[in-house]
Amino acid sequence: MPPSASEGTYPNAPGAEAAVLASWNDGPAKRAIIDFVARATDRSSQCFVRPEDRIATFDQDGTLWVEQPIYAQVAFAFDRLAALAESNPELNEVEPFKSVLSRDQVAIGAFTLKELEPIAAATHTNITVEAFRAHVAEWIARARHPIFGRRYTELTYQPMHELMAYLRSAGFAIYIVTGGGQDFVRVFAEETYGVSRDRVVGSILAARFGHDTSGRPILTKIANLVLINDVASKPEGIHMMIGRRPTIAFGNSGGDQPMLDFTTGGGGHAMGLLLLHDDTVREYAYGPALGLPDSKVGTFTQALYDEAQERGWTVVSMKNDWKRVFAFE
Amino acid sequence: MPPSASEGTYPNAPGAEAAVLASWNDGPAKRAIIDFVARATDRSSQCFVRPEDRIATFDQDGTLWVEQPIYAQVAFAFDRLAALAESNPELNEVEPFKSVLSRDQVAIGAFTLKELEPIAAATHTNITVEAFRAHVAEWIARARHPIFGRRYTELTYQPMHELMAYLRSAGFAIYIVTGGGQDFVRVFAEETYGVSRDRVVGSILAARFGHDTSGRPILTKIANLVLINDVASKPEGIHMMIGRRPTIAFGNSGGDQPMLDFTTGGGGHAMGLLLLHDDTVREYAYGPALGLPDSKVGTFTQALYDEAQERGWTVVSMKNDWKRVFAFE
Repeated sequence: MPPSASEGTYPNAPGAEAAVLASWNDGPAKRAIIDFVARATDRSSQCFVRPEDRIATFDQDGTLWVEQPIYAQVAFAFDRLAALAESNPELNEVEPFKSVLSRDQVAIGAFTLKELEPIAAATHTNITVEAFRAHVAEWIARARHPIFGRRYTELTYQPMHELMAYLRSAGFAIYIVTGGGQDFVRVFAEETYGVSRDRVVGSILAARFGHDTSGRPILTKIANLVLINDVASKPEGIHMMIGRRPTIAFGNSGGDQPMLDFTTGGGGHAMGLLLLHDDTVREYAYGPALGLPDSKVGTFTQALYDEAQERGWTVVSMKNDWKRVFAFE
Repeated sequence: MPPSASEGTYPNAPGAEAAVLASWNDGPAKRAIIDFVARATDRSSQCFVRPEDRIATFDQDGTLWVEQPIYAQVAFAFDRLAALAESNPELNEVEPFKSVLSRDQVAIGAFTLKELEPIAAATHTNITVEAFRAHVAEWIARARHPIFGRRYTELTYQPMHELMAYLRSAGFAIYIVTGGGQDFVRVFAEETYGVSRDRVVGSILAARFGHDTSGRPILTKIANLVLINDVASKPEGIHMMIGRRPTIAFGNSGGDQPMLDFTTGGGGHAMGLLLLHDDTVREYAYGPALGLPDSKVGTFTQALYDEAQERGWTVVSMKNDWKRVFAFE
């Protein structure tokens, strides 16, 4: 077996020898997971899943780490834009840069995704993949979440680390399937989640091959979108990067619905899970399924909640199913 | 360590316990490989390569298996077209189908790649990924090479199987980086090479997510090219699918030059290899480096040969460096 990068030896998760799913309350979600895995790995069961088909896919924002009040990658882009503006002060005079640089929250909140594209381009393109990686690594080590005051990688959910360790111990290969940028998430996925770079399925900006002025071969990120890995594109990205229908898929919003649909609709033993953010004390509560106001990110609609009930997808309540949310608690 | 599909347990290659590179003559190529790997895995060496960076990329056509007189995938497309014409006889009347279906070798030889696109579309799109997989699996089990009269998977090179086994035993992760179709090669890569589907980097036609008439979620191959994984796009495909600069790259033509350039031009301990087809007795000889006529496939030009000498890339002579070419010998 070749080493798939740092799989198995990463600091933020307990080893398989730790108590199984220790931060999960002994409720229906934990029982459903353990029952599913027991059958998937039992050769005498009709639900046995061949080792090569033990693929588990996890959304990131709102599933593995906090996505409120702002996606980490958006915070990165805004901080990166501020750094760029130091040497390009004219950015302060032009929208949408002006609103972002002056931290005009009302204007920022009103931007459509289309209007934010120049910010993505300015902060994510015309840069070598190595330089981009260095920027993200520096930022992820330094940046602090605006409410929690902690590093974003500290705001990953301890029960999800335990779930990934548990699934690995049962022979599952773990992939991150995120709407976020593949090159962004790859920077910390190995150390934070034990997921190697080739197992990060994310939105992809093309990297163009060429040479720098000294003739050294380089890859430069350019503004050609190869994949927006969200909603219906998640199964498409899964096919491109993995080539198998997953056995387990875990998400938290409508952006993950097709991934769960694809995973559980294939006729085999499969499990869909959705994380419900219903914990105002330890994290956030959002989504109409709770009768709470809708949110711009991570929409978990009533329709999705109803579909989960109908199709047997496991809804994991942060409030009720998790004994502990973060490792630092 | 998660199981990356069937890595390590595949039928056509010897285990790591077999004599190292037994089908390689004890010449400069074999010595260069063993010396490179010894230094890459020696913690006290300045050339030590961290386990997560031990990435080896292999071209397929002409590097892992026979590519003359026709690429296997082209033979598949022509056979598939014949099957389609049985229920769609009108194909026999329209070019480029007509020439292919009547096996008009002169006309076929004169087609440009652009003119062959309708054949790729007819045989590779408007089909679910599962149905396509079944067609390829059926074909690869049945089809015979026009000259050797053997299955294409039997026409893989025994020394390359041994090299992959040797590199795996030294902790390298093996990827196939082919101009061929990702979905085509994935069908047999696990069983033939021990390379799991997520480690096949190939040309990609988009797969569109949707539902069949009974509401089952499916992926359908469509005629949108996501990646033509050849020449400069090989490093780009490597970044997309792997996310690391390889340590070892093995090819056989100008289509692989950027992959070798990218691999060995990064400043680290790295190795580039090119297979020279100079064996008219056991396989084929082609390429101007031999003073032989050029070929439509697998062009190994004099310029590439010169560059290999200049940059220290190892040119592997099939005639001189390989004791045995095929397992069936």
